[in-house]
Amino acid sequence: MKTRLTEVFGLSLPVIQAPMAFVAGGALAAAVSRAGGLGLIGGGYGDAAWIEAQFDIAGDTPVGCGLISFAVQDRPQLLDQVLKHRPRALFLSFADPAPFLAPARAAGVPVICQVQTFRDACHALDLGVDIVVAQGGDAGGHGQSRGTMAFVPEVADEIARRGSDTLLCAAGGIADARGVLAALALGADGAVIGTRFWATQEALVDPRLVGPTLAHGGDDTIRTRVVDTVRRIDWPGRYSGRVLRSPFVERWHSDDAGLRQNLPVQEKLWQAAVARADTSVVAPFVGEAVGLIRSAEAAADVIAHIRADLQKGLRHSPDIT
Amino acid sequence: MKTRLTEVFGLSLPVIQAPMAFVAGGALAAAVSRAGGLGLIGGGYGDAAWIEAQFDIAGDTPVGCGLISFAVQDRPQLLDQVLKHRPRALFLSFADPAPFLAPARAAGVPVICQVQTFRDACHALDLGVDIVVAQGGDAGGHGQSRGTMAFVPEVADEIARRGSDTLLCAAGGIADARGVLAALALGADGAVIGTRFWATQEALVDPRLVGPTLAHGGDDTIRTRVVDTVRRIDWPGRYSGRVLRSPFVERWHSDDAGLRQNLPVQEKLWQAAVARADTSVVAPFVGEAVGLIRSAEAAADVIAHIRADLQKGLRHSPDIT
Repeated sequence: MKTRLTEVFGLSLPVIQAPMAFVAGGALAAAVSRAGGLGLIGGGYGDAAWIEAQFDIAGDTPVGCGLISFAVQDRPQLLDQVLKHRPRALFLSFADPAPFLAPARAAGVPVICQVQTFRDACHALDLGVDIVVAQGGDAGGHGQSRGTMAFVPEVADEIARRGSDTLLCAAGGIADARGVLAALALGADGAVIGTRFWATQEALVDPRLVGPTLAHGGDDTIRTRVVDTVRRIDWPGRYSGRVLRSPFVERWHSDDAGLRQNLPVQEKLWQAAVARADTSVVAPFVGEAVGLIRSAEAAADVIAHIRADLQKGLRHSPDIT
Repeated sequence: MKTRLTEVFGLSLPVIQAPMAFVAGGALAAAVSRAGGLGLIGGGYGDAAWIEAQFDIAGDTPVGCGLISFAVQDRPQLLDQVLKHRPRALFLSFADPAPFLAPARAAGVPVICQVQTFRDACHALDLGVDIVVAQGGDAGGHGQSRGTMAFVPEVADEIARRGSDTLLCAAGGIADARGVLAALALGADGAVIGTRFWATQEALVDPRLVGPTLAHGGDDTIRTRVVDTVRRIDWPGRYSGRVLRSPFVERWHSDDAGLRQNLPVQEKLWQAAVARADTSVVAPFVGEAVGLIRSAEAAADVIAHIRADLQKGLRHSPDIT
């Protein structure tokens, strides 16, 4: 299947694997890239040694790298380190991508900018990023509340209005070929897929969490600040993280002040629960699309299934009368 | 374009006009039906005289009728009144549709059940409704928080797993052919469209509100309880209504208790603002798809544009390589 996205990166299907922090290491990114998608290391908050190790694991397979903009914006040496690997793309999420553009361009690295509001999409277009990702709140992990369904075509209209040649991808709630086809129908050039790759053999996820998580559906997820508060990660107020609901999350979701007051105790409780993969406490960052996923697979099999279903889906499009 | 939905109702495109309370009268419903979609009167909270008047206005054109289940569940005479008109469909939203099914079936009227969670979708399938509508929180008006993008295929999978012959439609964030094609790609048989029909010449909307509302985008909408509180309409706690943000809504959104304490004063202020269409207070029920709509049109033109764009969209689907 050809779209502008597949042409730019030489992909065999219009799928970008989300650079999930802590989860998307070099093995996942390389597996996705080898299978024909765009694989990315989840550089996240910018642990330089971890990022270096993941590029090593990816080896000769070209992969991109994601960074959380606000967490690394004052660290030019980290950006240099990433760009030195000549990543296939630099994928920036959250807060202003402006400081990263000139260095990326100088290194010849395409910039993908993921946004959660129309206002931020316009800012990314003003800056002339190569690809804008319109991420709906349906997504797992951090984001805001816009729904994917109307957000993507609203950004597509703005790109058309400007006559911009920035590409557009959709993120949030996409786990299979149906979502990819929907993204293209909404005016995107491709789809960013997260949770489906979270549930792969290559993802850096405690395997004891995967089965219990996949037993749940989209109703069982929630956008919350609880997990950031208990991890002492200070996210800007407009972002929350979609996670699988756990009794711990339900307890504190509407009582952030109470959680902060009890933080020393609750933090230890959280860390101990992470160590033993206790799903009454731990709340994995997964999106509403968790309800579309039955089992963990090899990343290459995920891609193969999407490819086969894309072909079936396109052959079975409705008749025009 | 043929889908199972168009076959069942004899439509020429797979589009259902949402039965928006107070907004979708007989003129809108009839215009949509005449243009080839499924038009419905927004029976809402069940004002018997108003519903009667709207069926009169629709005249000989077959239209359906929507009702808010929890508001009318103890009023069998209202249901009899609606069924007596032999509506094209009975469209039930919110709370348990069970009490309505036997009478509708006895009258030979198909039942469409709109749900906002996977759990409620399963209940509707258990009951054997004719059509289930998976409504994402992207939608305008009342709803919950599931996003359309992953909710629709999750329900499609459940219908397939059961081998059920209930049809599936998508609602929430759909305003044009792109959304309809996305809905079909996600596994739906058709799309329910609200806000796009709110902005038509036939809709029962104060025309002074339309222009100012369409100047806004999806970022400017919010799910809130403010409008129900100030109108003294007692909605079950799990539902909120997506509206265009206004300074009044922003003021009270996080202070429902304060609004209730000041209700006599604020209610008068609200009613006066409604009378003069003051957009610093009034917050129309529109969805995130408001960002896709440029101007009010005749309902027939809305349908004509969707039809033309569906044909273009299907002709330009991506190549399989």
